[in-house]
Amino acid sequence: PRNFKSKVINFARSLKKIGQDDPRRVIHSLKVGIALTLVSLFYYSRPLYDGFGVAGMWAVLTVVVVFEFTVGGTLGKCLNRGCATLLAGALGVGAKHLATALGKRGEPIILGGLVFILAAGATFFRFCPKIKQRYDYGLTIFILTFSLVTVSGYRVEQLFELAHQRLATVLIGAAACMVISIIIYPVWAGEDLHKLVASNIEKLANYLEGFGGEYFQCMEDKEKTKNSVLEGYKSVLNTKANEESLANLARWEPGHGGFRLRHPWKQYLEIGTLVRQCAYRLETLNAYLYPEIQASLEFKCKIQEPCTKMSSESSKALKAISSSMKTMTDPSAAKCHIENSKAATKDLKLALETISLEDVEVLAIISVATVAAILEEITKSVD
Amino acid sequence: PRNFKSKVINFARSLKKIGQDDPRRVIHSLKVGIALTLVSLFYYSRPLYDGFGVAGMWAVLTVVVVFEFTVGGTLGKCLNRGCATLLAGALGVGAKHLATALGKRGEPIILGGLVFILAAGATFFRFCPKIKQRYDYGLTIFILTFSLVTVSGYRVEQLFELAHQRLATVLIGAAACMVISIIIYPVWAGEDLHKLVASNIEKLANYLEGFGGEYFQCMEDKEKTKNSVLEGYKSVLNTKANEESLANLARWEPGHGGFRLRHPWKQYLEIGTLVRQCAYRLETLNAYLYPEIQASLEFKCKIQEPCTKMSSESSKALKAISSSMKTMTDPSAAKCHIENSKAATKDLKLALETISLEDVEVLAIISVATVAAILEEITKSVD
Repeated sequence: PRNFKSKVINFARSLKKIGQDDPRRVIHSLKVGIALTLVSLFYYSRPLYDGFGVAGMWAVLTVVVVFEFTVGGTLGKCLNRGCATLLAGALGVGAKHLATALGKRGEPIILGGLVFILAAGATFFRFCPKIKQRYDYGLTIFILTFSLVTVSGYRVEQLFELAHQRLATVLIGAAACMVISIIIYPVWAGEDLHKLVASNIEKLANYLEGFGGEYFQCMEDKEKTKNSVLEGYKSVLNTKANEESLANLARWEPGHGGFRLRHPWKQYLEIGTLVRQCAYRLETLNAYLYPEIQASLEFKCKIQEPCTKMSSESSKALKAISSSMKTMTDPSAAKCHIENSKAATKDLKLALETISLEDVEVLAIISVATVAAILEEITKSVD
Repeated sequence: PRNFKSKVINFARSLKKIGQDDPRRVIHSLKVGIALTLVSLFYYSRPLYDGFGVAGMWAVLTVVVVFEFTVGGTLGKCLNRGCATLLAGALGVGAKHLATALGKRGEPIILGGLVFILAAGATFFRFCPKIKQRYDYGLTIFILTFSLVTVSGYRVEQLFELAHQRLATVLIGAAACMVISIIIYPVWAGEDLHKLVASNIEKLANYLEGFGGEYFQCMEDKEKTKNSVLEGYKSVLNTKANEESLANLARWEPGHGGFRLRHPWKQYLEIGTLVRQCAYRLETLNAYLYPEIQASLEFKCKIQEPCTKMSSESSKALKAISSSMKTMTDPSAAKCHIENSKAATKDLKLALETISLEDVEVLAIISVATVAAILEEITKSVD
């Protein structure tokens, strides 16, 4: 029992942490609760029930399935669901008419055949990457509605009324979701993407800032300062999937904040790719941070100045880019830092010509500086 | 119209390619069609319709929503859906009793409050990473069923019968999905994961195999041989999300093929991480493959032999590991290749002591060889 109790406490703590990490999550939960309660209460009231009947439950179903964390996700699902229901409903009614015209006996066979063909076809379409990205949910709903309409159409005689009711209730549910998700503390996928990319650049900058000092400090202090700043960049390595899904969702969103409609979300993905490439280089560089064999101190001294300057200047440049992205201004401040870091690179080359070997980590820094420079130029063109 | 026609043709071609790339996709589409048609026909037959009534459409709904590409996905969703429906149904009936006991006027208020609390709570739980990984779908269904039961419970008097019917039809749909997905050409997530990891290792091996020759060949041929083998490793960089989702699905699967129940799926993720780290180093190395400034030919000659040997031996070692993973045997053949590549590393060090500078790419290779060696030792312990 004690073990169980501590597990419960741990679980409660982790829940609390999830809420504290991002308070929007708590708000989102409350929003879902509100939307669902509203739609349910709507259904409880007798006059509306008489109008829609059992179809009212479709409104509930829509709210539960459609409400997503970001506005883009909710809108995308709503539009997908609305269009798919309309199209599949119309096709379903058409299929029903066709089947009835061909006689009572052939009806199940024809309907069954149509369901088979459409279901198999739509499922196959879902494997197409472009369609999967944006219309995956719509295709599921398409199969669902079509088979429901044909199946229930076989029994229920008032097919048109049914389709009309279902569409109306789906619209009510979808409208409730859209309004609530946009009005009450909206979570914009576009904003999240913007912040994610900016913070990723900042993480790289933090790493570079810390690296110079860390690498050239004397041995004794090393143990205690294996600090967490230098671990931050690791989370950048695997952000691709996250960025792509956010960019996907952002496409559904109307203009908001500083973003216009048709904001260039694709360019965020391009910056993201560059940032990751830079992170890959840092990962390689990081392997040399705590080498097993120490390079000679003498050698280190000679290269210390240009190296430290390179990493700190690239770091400053990245920070300038990141903050200019956040405020959406022109990153002109970054330019001089890039120039400085390029100059430092040249200094280093001069210094190296007088000495030799074991310059692994230094040359790795050069690559980082180069990447930083490239990154800069592209970022400038974007913002 | 011409533009449109060419677009349609392009689209058809891309669809054909999707089918050819993985014929299991076509089979999967047909499987969904079969399952859906079976359940629909089942619903058409009058005796069964009399037994279940309109609730039969829940079987259709279940099939559409639950049928996934992999067996693990389908089983996981079925189990989630079954348990969630059962639990939420019971809670819903309980809530209904409670509300009725408290009188006619308070009923909507109490039910509305309960829906709000449970919906907000369950939505919040979904943010917990561990729960999201495995029970996300179950929680959605839980909210859905609970609100549907309480909402419809307010009107329909035969609540128990309704719940019973719904559960029975959901079970029928789920059973159809499970049987069809397991019996007809099953797609096992575990097998896919196994193959993915093995093929990733092979891709790295291919890169290393090609690298030695590519880097040390003379300038003229370079343009034509910018070959695709050297691009293969890039796809390894971003496989994390894919591997994780497959490992997740694999957990739901019963033992099959050469895999036992409770196969160590987690270790695949660990190998995957190591493989990615190695790929990051290759990415850095790749930047030096087509340098703007050529190193002196003389210098290149001196290091050519050990470098080529290092990369080809590490490549052979990785290939041995990959094939031993595929056949699930002990990777003893890899050991001697590792020894060879370590010996080559030593040779290189000796060669380097006699010359100096511009040894960037060489030292990068050393790191690769080291990573390969580490990778090996860990893989050995796993398989």
